[in-house]
Amino acid sequence: MTILVVGSVALDTLKTIHGKRTHLLGGSAVYFSVAASFFTDVRLVGVVGDDFPKEHIDFLEHKNIDTSGLTVVKGGKTFHWDGEYGENHNIAITHDTQLGVFAEFKPHLPEGWNTSPYLFLGNIDPTLQLEVRRKMKPGTMVAMDTMNYWIQGAPAELDKILAEVDLLIINDGEAKLMSGERNEITAAEAVLEKGPKAVVVKKGEHGVFLCVGTVCFYAPAYPLRKVIDPTGAGDTFAGGLMGYLASVQASPSDEEALRRACIYGSVMASFTVEDWSLDRLKTATREEIDLRYNAFRKLMHF
Amino acid sequence: MTILVVGSVALDTLKTIHGKRTHLLGGSAVYFSVAASFFTDVRLVGVVGDDFPKEHIDFLEHKNIDTSGLTVVKGGKTFHWDGEYGENHNIAITHDTQLGVFAEFKPHLPEGWNTSPYLFLGNIDPTLQLEVRRKMKPGTMVAMDTMNYWIQGAPAELDKILAEVDLLIINDGEAKLMSGERNEITAAEAVLEKGPKAVVVKKGEHGVFLCVGTVCFYAPAYPLRKVIDPTGAGDTFAGGLMGYLASVQASPSDEEALRRACIYGSVMASFTVEDWSLDRLKTATREEIDLRYNAFRKLMHF
Repeated sequence: MTILVVGSVALDTLKTIHGKRTHLLGGSAVYFSVAASFFTDVRLVGVVGDDFPKEHIDFLEHKNIDTSGLTVVKGGKTFHWDGEYGENHNIAITHDTQLGVFAEFKPHLPEGWNTSPYLFLGNIDPTLQLEVRRKMKPGTMVAMDTMNYWIQGAPAELDKILAEVDLLIINDGEAKLMSGERNEITAAEAVLEKGPKAVVVKKGEHGVFLCVGTVCFYAPAYPLRKVIDPTGAGDTFAGGLMGYLASVQASPSDEEALRRACIYGSVMASFTVEDWSLDRLKTATREEIDLRYNAFRKLMHF
Repeated sequence: MTILVVGSVALDTLKTIHGKRTHLLGGSAVYFSVAASFFTDVRLVGVVGDDFPKEHIDFLEHKNIDTSGLTVVKGGKTFHWDGEYGENHNIAITHDTQLGVFAEFKPHLPEGWNTSPYLFLGNIDPTLQLEVRRKMKPGTMVAMDTMNYWIQGAPAELDKILAEVDLLIINDGEAKLMSGERNEITAAEAVLEKGPKAVVVKKGEHGVFLCVGTVCFYAPAYPLRKVIDPTGAGDTFAGGLMGYLASVQASPSDEEALRRACIYGSVMASFTVEDWSLDRLKTATREEIDLRYNAFRKLMHF
């Protein structure tokens, strides 16, 4: 089953304890799409400037990601993020953000894309998220991400879209900020009251937890001896999660499928952080994915 | 099978976001003993002053903990810790430490106690840990804890006892400090090279992980909506873990038993932090323990 993703497509300049890289392929919609492409067909809606290298578009197409929803603005500049991570990979320091053409982004869905059975709303203006969500045919399973900027700056708009999604995927700090709760469980419960049937709270190297109604599920992060670049881990997680759900045609209330989806998401995130940008995802195979999925059974079995 | 525990017996003055309490029952050997007592017989070796309330000794005895190894020093003062926790329960701020009679602690084992099949060496001077360990009959399963003070101040002594124990139970910061590694997996691997057959790394609210050879197991902390007082969580974890191992007569290389033991440890820790001092452990029942153990299956199953 096809997934439609709306979000950022970016060029990132990154510094970690392992070095510095400039103008790497990035953006939430890119990380999400590539992770999901291991499981199902993906349709990408986003915007770039004409400085965006054609090789990146070729790579996405090669991964069976339909980029006909990717608008290329002539004379425009692609969204550029310049950031740094220290020892604690959960904390990113932003040096510079150049929104470029992303500042005026109006998601445009190609003909027929509103029938996509799965939709992921990447971290963009909640008003745009709601617009896209309302264009979709009834029965679409909708998941979304957001960030502190919208939680603090547009809480009313955020509440509107939250009331119309099935699944919210956010990090622990965002869940606490959104709810005003200090405890991660009460924060997740308060977030669920806003509308989503389920919430997945990401805790970086400490794994994720899923709440569906009163049921909780915890998964650790895949143990890695070395993390090169944590950029995109959360979006790749969401891509693996939604990709798996779409591949088994799961309904948003299928708790057992959501548990397995969290594991596939964690597997995909583990590849992302092993190298810069999407370099490790470029070489990952379905066989490697299944090996790590099975390793999770051993990691969590008792 | 009986467990012998050597460690501190203390009176704690604590401040958390939920209030302040003075002269509470505490100490690593106390938390450990009470947690382990739900599973097996416990023998406690420690020292207190004659200011130590008799009601605490009565409580321990009532829990079938043999306190004939608890020395009461006439005119002496019991070890007193004055500490505080903020929002982050993993970080304790020490306001004052009065070692009292604990400063001159020489563990004295009553007749026949050296045949105890399980031994837990609480966080004391590694030279004393080694002395006790060497008094035991061959075949004793030995687990130990330590802290930054000894890792930095007595690394050579620590290495000696590490070479003679089966299981090390420490927190993530200690594992990193002991190994010089920044990554939790490589830290655990480096620690195993010092001698223990297995290591359990405690990560507070983020759970624990176990490494036995090349095999890893992760368990989350039991999800709680409210934490009142995190004091003793780690020692209670160790008590539940060792108590379970002793109750099933597990060998130190029984990986499956160690996994289950980590869950029982996490269950016991979850009770401890729900109230001040050992108050929640005083009311906990075996039925409640098994309910939370089964809840962990639901929390981790996929």
